[in-house]
Amino acid sequence: MPVKIAVNGYGTIGKRIVDAVLSNKDFRLVGIAKYRVDYSAYLAARKGIPIYVPRERASEFREAGLEPHGYVDYLFEEADLIYDASPGGKGAGNKKIYESYGKPGVFQGGEEPGVAELSYSTLCNFEEALNKKYVRVVSCNTTGMLRLLCTLHREYGVKRALSVIIRRAADPKEDQRGPVNSILLDPPSIPSHHGLDARTVAPWLDIVTAAAVVPTTLMHMQFIEVELSTQVNRGDVVELLDGINRFLLVESASTGIDSTSKVMELARDSGRPRGDIYENIVFIDSLSINASRLYLFQGIHQESIVIPENIDVAYAMLGIESDPLKVMERVDSTLGIGGLRRFISPHGYIQIGGAP
Amino acid sequence: MPVKIAVNGYGTIGKRIVDAVLSNKDFRLVGIAKYRVDYSAYLAARKGIPIYVPRERASEFREAGLEPHGYVDYLFEEADLIYDASPGGKGAGNKKIYESYGKPGVFQGGEEPGVAELSYSTLCNFEEALNKKYVRVVSCNTTGMLRLLCTLHREYGVKRALSVIIRRAADPKEDQRGPVNSILLDPPSIPSHHGLDARTVAPWLDIVTAAAVVPTTLMHMQFIEVELSTQVNRGDVVELLDGINRFLLVESASTGIDSTSKVMELARDSGRPRGDIYENIVFIDSLSINASRLYLFQGIHQESIVIPENIDVAYAMLGIESDPLKVMERVDSTLGIGGLRRFISPHGYIQIGGAP
Repeated sequence: MPVKIAVNGYGTIGKRIVDAVLSNKDFRLVGIAKYRVDYSAYLAARKGIPIYVPRERASEFREAGLEPHGYVDYLFEEADLIYDASPGGKGAGNKKIYESYGKPGVFQGGEEPGVAELSYSTLCNFEEALNKKYVRVVSCNTTGMLRLLCTLHREYGVKRALSVIIRRAADPKEDQRGPVNSILLDPPSIPSHHGLDARTVAPWLDIVTAAAVVPTTLMHMQFIEVELSTQVNRGDVVELLDGINRFLLVESASTGIDSTSKVMELARDSGRPRGDIYENIVFIDSLSINASRLYLFQGIHQESIVIPENIDVAYAMLGIESDPLKVMERVDSTLGIGGLRRFISPHGYIQIGGAP
Repeated sequence: MPVKIAVNGYGTIGKRIVDAVLSNKDFRLVGIAKYRVDYSAYLAARKGIPIYVPRERASEFREAGLEPHGYVDYLFEEADLIYDASPGGKGAGNKKIYESYGKPGVFQGGEEPGVAELSYSTLCNFEEALNKKYVRVVSCNTTGMLRLLCTLHREYGVKRALSVIIRRAADPKEDQRGPVNSILLDPPSIPSHHGLDARTVAPWLDIVTAAAVVPTTLMHMQFIEVELSTQVNRGDVVELLDGINRFLLVESASTGIDSTSKVMELARDSGRPRGDIYENIVFIDSLSINASRLYLFQGIHQESIVIPENIDVAYAMLGIESDPLKVMERVDSTLGIGGLRRFISPHGYIQIGGAP
């Protein structure tokens, strides 16, 4: 019998979790909690998604022509698992509500680690999430870093890592954020919080991170340096990463794809909903190895990269499936992860922007 | 008696060299060579700068209302030193012309290293430029990296360095370059050419560089990691860099300056011509040390950072002065380098963009 899901919030993350839940037969969406009448409320209504509202707000929704499906207390009562997709920082308050209903909850990376029993990333610590009640899926940049570093650690051992994160300034819809024409150190100190955040999942990780914000909306770009415990062969690393659907290896020379905007064009052309990219985009021409040091650039789609991990973790928390490989296979197939490969494989690649 | 200078080209670099020469009593500007009637030709004329043109182009200039001061052959004949500030890649052809007049020449970083006897950066190899006839001043990013790395190497020894360069997409006037909304790997491979270029000046340097272009016009931002031969104290590094005018140390916490745009505002407010910033802008809140590893961010003003080195090198090539410290003191004082400090010192700092 499918697991009943409530999604608290319908913003950037919430609406994507909803779509992922709807596409997966292991889950059934009870509905979403909405607190304000806005574009996303109408969007949900048009899509036939049940909207639950606080009792005291019901008239506001009715006046706006949005008949609520019910009240949020029913939604939380009915659900087996609640996704907290509220604005960052509201999770701790919401947790008390979820606890009052005795329901498990998945929080997002904008919350303090203390909100949950465990900070989580599938390729690092799926097993630790088994039967946990409150889990925090780390944020987009941390998720992207950890997928790579935990994979490399398991295979070769990671002695030390460095990441310089070139961050997007705003999401596409955010027209009030900057910078417009500047490179902003955020923070102006080193290390940035990303390394600390990564260690909430992988305490063994010796990492320094630094971050600057630049005027673009599409994706983050991470420069990564990893000192491995063993000397490795470039071909083996390529094969390792290519064997995991959460990584999409893009060869710039053959495809012409050497930027975040060209990656987005691939996602849009492929028919991905919203042009989302759930995978770490590893620019493999940049993957170079010097003795035991590995370097690469990877692109991170900030709006969608955490969605697979959000779904994965439900399998662990609710004890549906305890093998992370089976869980990823299931989640990847429902989200179409792995499917972009055929557009850029050496045998059928497309070229964007002319000759490589 | 002042040294007679010709400047071949009057673009981004050429016009700044001209202004630096005009501000320095050790030099006398004979004039500039211009090949086309355009905005910068009128600009030079308005500023009273003697314009020399090819014989066959003289009528074109006259028809445009620009009476040439003379022909380029006279300019090159008359000069003691020629600055090649022509578009990148034209230097090799021009060198043959300079040779035909028997005149020494300074080339820019856009030329192949082979164009000159020596690739140059003052804080690295001033002495090697003494009495050389053809010298190449390396490009903006390489100049910024080498100032720092050679200074650290002399004091502590540099075992290994890494730089991730977040490059500006275009200069402010360039309205046809991109990207507009993308992070472009340039190149999509690692290492980028910057490390190789740095080694043309400092062959001892073990360095990996990587570069991405982002949608901004103001400055480059370099993330730097250096592994030093000795354990160092953060305060000592701050004191070392603060003692050299080519570095401007900006404390973000007290000044609120944590981005390239805020640095530019400082330069504009200070009255610097064109808002130029000749110094490496070291964001000292980012300067952190972990055992023998040093990390920092530094901002590099691509249009002007190479100007001091262009002037310095003339002192060496022409044998005017053989002590680099005296040369830098002289050049810095004519360009006002060091003068921005009073705007951001702890005793009289300004705040930009509100509270830190």
